[in-house]
Amino acid sequence: MLILLITSTGCSSVVSREQVGARYVFLFIGDGMGLAQVELGRALLAPGDSLAFTSFPVTGLVSTSAPDRYITDSAAAGTALATGLPTAIGTVSMAANHRDTLRTIVEMAEAGGRRTGVVSSVGIDNATPACFYAHEPLRGSYYAIALQMASSGVDYFGGGRPEGNFPHKRAGAAVDRGDIDSLMHRSGYSVVKDSASLAAVQSGRLCIASAPSSLKGALPFEMDRPATEADLALFTREGIRLLENPQGFFMMVEGGKIDWACHANDAAAAGIDVGAFDRAIREAVQFYRRHPDETLIVVTADHECGGLSLGNREGGYQSRISLLHAQKLSLERLSGKVAAWKRSGGVSFQAALDSVRAFTGLRAGAADSVFALSVAQQRELRDAFRATMSSGVPRTGQYGTDDSFSPAVVGILNRRAGVGWSSNVHTAVPVPVFALGRNAHMFAGFYPNTAFGKKLMQASGLPGSLR
Amino acid sequence: MLILLITSTGCSSVVSREQVGARYVFLFIGDGMGLAQVELGRALLAPGDSLAFTSFPVTGLVSTSAPDRYITDSAAAGTALATGLPTAIGTVSMAANHRDTLRTIVEMAEAGGRRTGVVSSVGIDNATPACFYAHEPLRGSYYAIALQMASSGVDYFGGGRPEGNFPHKRAGAAVDRGDIDSLMHRSGYSVVKDSASLAAVQSGRLCIASAPSSLKGALPFEMDRPATEADLALFTREGIRLLENPQGFFMMVEGGKIDWACHANDAAAAGIDVGAFDRAIREAVQFYRRHPDETLIVVTADHECGGLSLGNREGGYQSRISLLHAQKLSLERLSGKVAAWKRSGGVSFQAALDSVRAFTGLRAGAADSVFALSVAQQRELRDAFRATMSSGVPRTGQYGTDDSFSPAVVGILNRRAGVGWSSNVHTAVPVPVFALGRNAHMFAGFYPNTAFGKKLMQASGLPGSLR
Repeated sequence: MLILLITSTGCSSVVSREQVGARYVFLFIGDGMGLAQVELGRALLAPGDSLAFTSFPVTGLVSTSAPDRYITDSAAAGTALATGLPTAIGTVSMAANHRDTLRTIVEMAEAGGRRTGVVSSVGIDNATPACFYAHEPLRGSYYAIALQMASSGVDYFGGGRPEGNFPHKRAGAAVDRGDIDSLMHRSGYSVVKDSASLAAVQSGRLCIASAPSSLKGALPFEMDRPATEADLALFTREGIRLLENPQGFFMMVEGGKIDWACHANDAAAAGIDVGAFDRAIREAVQFYRRHPDETLIVVTADHECGGLSLGNREGGYQSRISLLHAQKLSLERLSGKVAAWKRSGGVSFQAALDSVRAFTGLRAGAADSVFALSVAQQRELRDAFRATMSSGVPRTGQYGTDDSFSPAVVGILNRRAGVGWSSNVHTAVPVPVFALGRNAHMFAGFYPNTAFGKKLMQASGLPGSLR
Repeated sequence: MLILLITSTGCSSVVSREQVGARYVFLFIGDGMGLAQVELGRALLAPGDSLAFTSFPVTGLVSTSAPDRYITDSAAAGTALATGLPTAIGTVSMAANHRDTLRTIVEMAEAGGRRTGVVSSVGIDNATPACFYAHEPLRGSYYAIALQMASSGVDYFGGGRPEGNFPHKRAGAAVDRGDIDSLMHRSGYSVVKDSASLAAVQSGRLCIASAPSSLKGALPFEMDRPATEADLALFTREGIRLLENPQGFFMMVEGGKIDWACHANDAAAAGIDVGAFDRAIREAVQFYRRHPDETLIVVTADHECGGLSLGNREGGYQSRISLLHAQKLSLERLSGKVAAWKRSGGVSFQAALDSVRAFTGLRAGAADSVFALSVAQQRELRDAFRATMSSGVPRTGQYGTDDSFSPAVVGILNRRAGVGWSSNVHTAVPVPVFALGRNAHMFAGFYPNTAFGKKLMQASGLPGSLR
């Protein structure tokens, strides 16, 4: 076989051209979004709908372990994605020795004259977004991290409020430089607290504090979100509007509550938040269509969460994923209602079961229904209800109010739907990558998260990475 | 063949060249091998070792659902991979109507004048390999499927014995055309039953029956395999030797016992079999190095199995995957020993615990050891032991002898190691693809398993696919 390739002009120029970095770079991080979470998001779409990012032409796979623990956390993982370098669990863009700061892609983009944006559906000083603009030995030092927002040079912060601005978080700080909103204002940021005011900001640095209905500064779960409150897509769209400029930009957008839903083993909330994450990505895809030769969109996750499986021991080969549509509110909100019952002096178990029926469809009797609670399940709920009602004042845990009744309800619905959960925390199952646009091909293959960070710098043509 | 591509730009000639099909095509199917299984295989390698296939330059993602069930089986999934078309659960390369046969890539390769090979570590008439050479409404019709081996035109069958040749399987068949070995012999195949005789076959059609130590015709789990018995790598290497010819070949190699190990929730057996599967792939990689421009190697799975997670509720963020190295034999073999205890009139619980210690390291006492059995675990084992010993004659189930003691032992070790399992059957979690060589780029992206089958035909340049 003879294949004659005349390459003196055209082909070699294609190769060189591909090595020029993308001018407009979007990194979307679905926190806790493994391959099972992506499939769950697909399964919960309306018939005929599809996720935009799963049609991206290039896919990759990323291993997520940290040097000091097989199962990573969002700080070590976020540092790897943001800096291309490994660090210890809990560390925000510093080396494991907690002395050396690591240079982030946001800092590289700023040095290259590009605008930068950091967006998250959870508190903007939480580990994942923090790794892109702050350097801090401990991810839990929210106030210390939030203080770094003002000096970060980031042009746009969008999404959840900084947790570090809440009085009880500031109280424990070593230094008090006042509240974050005022500090941001003094540093030249417009600080906007509702989405209606957002469009009025025409240019300049912007910091957005999130909608009022959320826990700990985060946006609500998509399934709980009132239509009047901003979603991740809106924050992404406004970011594009403010960052677009001829020098280019880098924007990180985190779908942070996918992880929270997986910690809670709440499949409906997780899958529906994957859909909300996809709608944010669609904003970037619209921008890409206007600048296809200069735009790169990469979607990945920092780690899997929950050991999610689409299939379980009870159901075997049978599953009914669509039962999850019957769940009308997140476990977090259901848990909030349970806490309200306790504060109001308690309700009867029958009243609780009525709420369970209203919010999930699950009910006693009606044995021929897929929503029928078995005798054993009724007993499970009664025991959990008694334990919850007889315990002390409700405490707010890391991922919602602490009760055992709500997880029992959601657990029954999840098992009935054919969903399996192995864990309440992260796992070491690798995560997928989806890439579209300029230099997307660089993200093919299976590699560690640190290599992902380096690829992102190279694909963006940022200093220190590509020659 | 002369392909003269002189186009105006030169670049389009590259595209045209890539559309020429690969002459030598390897499809490796890790049955039940999701992304978590790949990671488990990596985690169980010796320090410094790596899997060859995870370094392939192109990765893809495949959704596995069948039209009639969200969680697929190996027949519907194998049909999708082999024919590019959907079918109903349990159906071997026929349409869901059970009347129309579907053309397989093996038949296309034969029509194109290429040699073909089908290799599996389980019975060569089991669903996955069967989908490449047979057409049958029911995957369980082993004898009917095995009969089709002789008329299939496949040049090389390697690996596990046909289950359909076992007397109890033949007994239920509608027609009896004699034993499969004799039939194969009459059809011009050399039938070889031990690996020592294998190298003596210099050319011609070959059918290999597997090593004697295995269940149901399958090769043993890699962790149980005596060094004298053939492994999947040997069957792959011999296949390459017999199939290599200027017209090219197509060879499918299945790592079938990864699935069996996952059905049994036996992480050590699953992870070590991923390693054995990789060694088979390395044989193809060696061939690729000799024919890099004409060879395509694609590695994927038909579905995930077990809802495997690397992390579990008990361990949280802590895991000790290396504890799995302490397991000296598969759950299947341990179960065989338990059956032997029963046949011999029973052993004491203390003797059983001594065996548990010898085979897994787990033991009572020594509370400071990672292998210490808690009081609750000792009780769990005692209850399982009593239930097993007081039940009737041991029965051989689909994936090993039926007892509750062995799964309890292996389950404790798995949980201690930080492994989670959600199911004893398949799940709908998508599976990864790894591709190397000619047209490997075609396998990027996220697509259904039917699209995978079509891509494979196109990448191989086989009739009916690429113009």
